[in-house]
Amino acid sequence: MTKPEVIAQLVPKRLPAPKKTVTAFAPSNIALCKYWGKRDAELNLPTAPSLSISLGRLGSEVTLTPCADHDRYTLNGRRLLPECVFARRASAFFDLFRPHKQFFLEVVARNTIPTAAGLASSASGFAALTLALNDLLGWKLDRRKLSILARLGSGSACRSLFEGFVEWRVGKAADGLDSFAEPLPTRWPDLRVGLVVLSKQEKPIGSRDAMAHTRATSPLYAAWPATVERDFAALKEAIRRRDFTRLGELAEGNALAMHATMLAARPAVVYCLPESLEAMQAVRALRADGCEVYFTMDAGPNLKLLFRKPDLRGIVKRFPEVQVVAPFA
Amino acid sequence: MTKPEVIAQLVPKRLPAPKKTVTAFAPSNIALCKYWGKRDAELNLPTAPSLSISLGRLGSEVTLTPCADHDRYTLNGRRLLPECVFARRASAFFDLFRPHKQFFLEVVARNTIPTAAGLASSASGFAALTLALNDLLGWKLDRRKLSILARLGSGSACRSLFEGFVEWRVGKAADGLDSFAEPLPTRWPDLRVGLVVLSKQEKPIGSRDAMAHTRATSPLYAAWPATVERDFAALKEAIRRRDFTRLGELAEGNALAMHATMLAARPAVVYCLPESLEAMQAVRALRADGCEVYFTMDAGPNLKLLFRKPDLRGIVKRFPEVQVVAPFA
Repeated sequence: MTKPEVIAQLVPKRLPAPKKTVTAFAPSNIALCKYWGKRDAELNLPTAPSLSISLGRLGSEVTLTPCADHDRYTLNGRRLLPECVFARRASAFFDLFRPHKQFFLEVVARNTIPTAAGLASSASGFAALTLALNDLLGWKLDRRKLSILARLGSGSACRSLFEGFVEWRVGKAADGLDSFAEPLPTRWPDLRVGLVVLSKQEKPIGSRDAMAHTRATSPLYAAWPATVERDFAALKEAIRRRDFTRLGELAEGNALAMHATMLAARPAVVYCLPESLEAMQAVRALRADGCEVYFTMDAGPNLKLLFRKPDLRGIVKRFPEVQVVAPFA
Repeated sequence: MTKPEVIAQLVPKRLPAPKKTVTAFAPSNIALCKYWGKRDAELNLPTAPSLSISLGRLGSEVTLTPCADHDRYTLNGRRLLPECVFARRASAFFDLFRPHKQFFLEVVARNTIPTAAGLASSASGFAALTLALNDLLGWKLDRRKLSILARLGSGSACRSLFEGFVEWRVGKAADGLDSFAEPLPTRWPDLRVGLVVLSKQEKPIGSRDAMAHTRATSPLYAAWPATVERDFAALKEAIRRRDFTRLGELAEGNALAMHATMLAARPAVVYCLPESLEAMQAVRALRADGCEVYFTMDAGPNLKLLFRKPDLRGIVKRFPEVQVVAPFA
């Protein structure tokens, strides 16, 4: 099934081309149970469910203004070349929704999360673009439907439509209308996420390509979908019971299992830098010392720490540069 | 089935207790397709076949002399305490073969491979002990049977009974009499193995425990046995055809897949140090530069390089401390 076929089922047709300016914000999200593998690459449908936590005020803010001739992009005050990855992907996304062929957009985007942090800005970016389009084009769709549309731009963007803990339902339908995100009811005010930037080097390979390469070549990938099913169910239960130890162990184990599938890919995909390994050792040492902190790690070398407010001091002592987020504060 | 039951089928009984001194040597071996998981922990029977290369004159030399009261151990000129791991495991091995209860052995062992290199000295050690016992106790067994006996002491020791490329047949029988090592016919004179010692720190966990923990807790381990079956068959074929690129890619991929199963264990087992990651990056950089070198890695932080004689110079330039072995020279 194609994106236009899915969109035709969700988005009202033949709305007049608007002229106003709209602004929308969506938070970044960090997966505690990872999205790693697509059953449908066209629609970004996952092979397994995933579960994330949104980062409050850290995310992407986008302003859309209709304009002439071609799409224009400004990110954090800088003009982007139309050939750059974000511009190309965003324009391809707009192509799905333009009211007429000569309808173009001026996009002014600002990431409130350091881009260098290697945090998936495509998730918050496509979520914010979807929210802005909903406003600009007058769709009046609910968040669940917007989550489906955002997924068509970038898989994990569907989770950035919501605050707090968010699950992304794997779904079964070929059109993916049952594969959307929704928030979990649990609030956890003293939970903290710490962002530790270890390298600003460019990644050796983007996460989309890494995911596809791993699925195609890693002999251990066969065991990944069942791993996620188990972790996902256990994480939901740990969140419901506010069992932090279990949540931390599961998130760390799930992230390492994802990186393990990449390590076994042929050739291997290694996002881990020597600095990442050192930071992992430091996390283990902190834990052995009574400071309960866990890490998770995405398709990049940086670590995201999970801890509770009372342990902040010990963590800052070891990671003075950590940027701390209170997702429920 | 128990070790004594297996041994009763192989070793002649009621030989008189000897009084002479014997010496035997066995090489270390490096697995290109790893032994990682037991289907029978008592008999060290593997879940999958494995394939190794023996390291020529690098290995263990042991001298056995019957003595009174208790076993005595000297390793590389130093007395070992009877409580140390090697002494305990060796004495438990001797228990299986003592002609009478008051028969003890003075063991003088010398490793010609640096012990600090983290190279499995238990493999060459138990192979040499088995060869020495065969001589001392007059068993007159062939190498295949000795390979089975050595396996009872340490799984990978069965491969150290032979030179060159060696396969360890997985076998099916409950008594393990069909699970032995045997040499492959291919000789490869310009093949080289480079030992790169990156740390002399003690390992966080021994390989036996790491193997058991991984098998019990790693959600990706389910895919490991099938991975080995495929790698094993492909490696044998690469060796037969003397396809070095294929051999290198398979050995590196298989080692990384083994480490990936450990990374996904819960909690994770990480033998990789930041220095190991740096060395892997250096190997990849050498390769991109036209110097064809691959690595393999066992239950420790050190790397073993695989290359051919003409590439020696480039490798020594990047790894000045490398110790080079010519397994077929």
